[in-house]
Amino acid sequence: HERVRSVLETQLVQRAVILVIVVNAVTIGCETSAYLTARIGGLLHVVDRIALGVFVLELVARLYAYRRSFFAEPWNWFDTLIVTMALIPASGPTSVLRALRILRALRLLSVVPSMRRVVSALLAAVPGMASIIGLLVLMIYIAAVIATKLFGDIAPERFDDLPRSLFTLFQIMTGDDWGNTAQTVMEHKPWAWIFFIVYILMSTFVALNLFIAVVVNAMND
Amino acid sequence: HERVRSVLETQLVQRAVILVIVVNAVTIGCETSAYLTARIGGLLHVVDRIALGVFVLELVARLYAYRRSFFAEPWNWFDTLIVTMALIPASGPTSVLRALRILRALRLLSVVPSMRRVVSALLAAVPGMASIIGLLVLMIYIAAVIATKLFGDIAPERFDDLPRSLFTLFQIMTGDDWGNTAQTVMEHKPWAWIFFIVYILMSTFVALNLFIAVVVNAMND
Amino acid sequence: HERVRSVLETQLVQRAVILVIVVNAVTIGCETSAYLTARIGGLLHVVDRIALGVFVLELVARLYAYRRSFFAEPWNWFDTLIVTMALIPASGPTSVLRALRILRALRLLSVVPSMRRVVSALLAAVPGMASIIGLLVLMIYIAAVIATKLFGDIAPERFDDLPRSLFTLFQIMTGDDWGNTAQTVMEHKPWAWIFFIVYILMSTFVALNLFIAVVVNAMND
Amino acid sequence: HERVRSVLETQLVQRAVILVIVVNAVTIGCETSAYLTARIGGLLHVVDRIALGVFVLELVARLYAYRRSFFAEPWNWFDTLIVTMALIPASGPTSVLRALRILRALRLLSVVPSMRRVVSALLAAVPGMASIIGLLVLMIYIAAVIATKLFGDIAPERFDDLPRSLFTLFQIMTGDDWGNTAQTVMEHKPWAWIFFIVYILMSTFVALNLFIAVVVNAMND
Ligand code: NA
Ligand code: NA
Repeated sequence: HERVRSVLETQLVQRAVILVIVVNAVTIGCETSAYLTARIGGLLHVVDRIALGVFVLELVARLYAYRRSFFAEPWNWFDTLIVTMALIPASGPTSVLRALRILRALRLLSVVPSMRRVVSALLAAVPGMASIIGLLVLMIYIAAVIATKLFGDIAPERFDDLPRSLFTLFQIMTGDDWGNTAQTVMEHKPWAWIFFIVYILMSTFVALNLFIAVVVNAMND
Repeated sequence: HERVRSVLETQLVQRAVILVIVVNAVTIGCETSAYLTARIGGLLHVVDRIALGVFVLELVARLYAYRRSFFAEPWNWFDTLIVTMALIPASGPTSVLRALRILRALRLLSVVPSMRRVVSALLAAVPGMASIIGLLVLMIYIAAVIATKLFGDIAPERFDDLPRSLFTLFQIMTGDDWGNTAQTVMEHKPWAWIFFIVYILMSTFVALNLFIAVVVNAMND
Repeated sequence: HERVRSVLETQLVQRAVILVIVVNAVTIGCETSAYLTARIGGLLHVVDRIALGVFVLELVARLYAYRRSFFAEPWNWFDTLIVTMALIPASGPTSVLRALRILRALRLLSVVPSMRRVVSALLAAVPGMASIIGLLVLMIYIAAVIATKLFGDIAPERFDDLPRSLFTLFQIMTGDDWGNTAQTVMEHKPWAWIFFIVYILMSTFVALNLFIAVVVNAMND
Repeated sequence: HERVRSVLETQLVQRAVILVIVVNAVTIGCETSAYLTARIGGLLHVVDRIALGVFVLELVARLYAYRRSFFAEPWNWFDTLIVTMALIPASGPTSVLRALRILRALRLLSVVPSMRRVVSALLAAVPGMASIIGLLVLMIYIAAVIATKLFGDIAPERFDDLPRSLFTLFQIMTGDDWGNTAQTVMEHKPWAWIFFIVYILMSTFVALNLFIAVVVNAMND
């Protein structure tokens, strides 16, 4: 398996895998078009099968070449998960599983070294943000409970139950269309501006500090 | 009270309090659902009473254990306020006080050490921002007085009186739906774009510098 | 005039001036309310006259105290401009000049030392941004000319003439409701997404770098 | 050609070229107005011809003066491209090429030294962002394929085919009006909030890190 390993690590093989991933991503994209599926649907399907075959082959070869150390590398778990998911048979043309086939294109992240580094850096930033994210989630949850109780009857399309309120408050935090929501509520409860403005100021301030935590971490590295 | 103090500071007790807070937050959340209240409303109520009992007990124990130094710690004031609020009887099922019961979940902030540190850091950032916040408030107030006088008759649903103008201008500062507001006004006063664009540029610039003040403070620490 | 100067610089006089500015800002705000004007309109008017008298008096005293060096200080020019504007007689209850009376509240910026420092810092940041602002203005102007020519007939309510296109493109740069504008145009010219996406990417990128220029300047100080 | 070079580099000539560019930008702007074209259209046309003549003359003089080294400077390629584009005859008053004539105003970027520096700095920032931009594009593409397959039938005006989905997802990433799009889809597929919230969190997080990459690069310079 020393030889298999050295073959797998040649630039030629790596570039071939990248090419197969990109071609497969394009063919899956083409399958969204009824026009293209009607004309070259057979070809798209064949390319898809071949690409999947290449992925399985390459994964098995890597497993054979690296043996135990294969499982020590998280990226290999990632690749295995994606390829396994592709092998599950999916029935019906619009099933969710079929739609998720395009996730195979994520294999680019593990194959291209610069992508791999960027994703690792992004993931490394997450633990340092855990406390602030926890605070943000707590804040949205508290606000959603209050909003459901106070505004559930007034604006049911926005605050009917807890899940809907959570969605609405997430939307408000992103600044999307919050004025209309607030004004609908204020027609019945004129003091409701207090709730919305306090919520926006606090969630923006916490999100801002989340952002600063990320920047400061990045600067220190 | 040395012994009470050492018991309170064991990890077991602290984790138990955290558990009670989380369970209570979930039960209060469940109470927003008519479905769940109809089925397990009695259970939810009992859990709520027990949780409140635990909070009161823990607070009294802490007061007994730390005596005078209890009041030296601002977080204790915070906990006392929240628990006291929970004890005020609230009439009517949708009263504001009942809705605010979920604020008890904020006790997580004082109990979990990493949360405590995050909140302290956030609050520590506020005094350094006082002057810029003052400038921003002054700007919004001045803009609101001008807008009420100039646009109050044209767009009463936006600039009818000072409180409404303040709300609208806060909304415009967050960038939400300002174009429509401006265009409604500009139909009657075509020069009104000057007001809106100057206001957006100035408020964004000041808010940006508020942001920078926070970042620079955070960097220096 | 040495004595006048020392009187003007006592904390008592400075606080009195701040108080008059704040009270006047509040009374001008109250005048926007038809309810309050009907009830205490006379009182509001008297307070307004007195405040204006105090401002004129303080300004004349400062001019007498500092003589030539009065004009060396830009903040004195600022105060003179604001007070002079207040003295111009304005006819009609909704005239623009009457609405601008509230600008007197800006005198807080020159009187409160911490405000003065913040505003000076903000203004000091502007020259370093001149080139990027110039680039941004050039970009918006070019985009507005192109949009007027290409989309003027399709979406006249958005791109009818150059001023309107400039307004719309400023609005798009702030991210407000750009999707609808783009879709209206794309119904007739499906390739128009190229224009909008290139414009958004470029203006956001330049605005982002404007922001970085401000932060880097602030960090170096 | 030594003499031509020294003439071209005098401040007088450079200022004259800047003046011609600005005047020409203004006249092209005036041509968007039917009112002005009807009254002074002839004059505008003459100024436009003269300006183009000056640009060609200056370019030829520079080519003569610098010879081979002319092509070593990328800005000269930029100027040549813009002037050449202006010389292509365009038929029809609203042709795209005619509308793009205003791109000549971009010559300001190559002529004004401070603009030149800003643009160079902006372009220098791009390579360092390549990996993160690649990740962002990959993410939007994957999300667009999934959205087309899952939501194409439910919300055809948003996710009909791949290009439309790409447009919609770009719009959602900018935070414009995403709540309405999500709610339209959620009426039929209530679990669709998972897709939208995951997409917003991930794209915002990656865009945020793109931003940090730019800031950190700028700080190191
Ligand atoms: Na928005
Ligand atoms: Na919006």
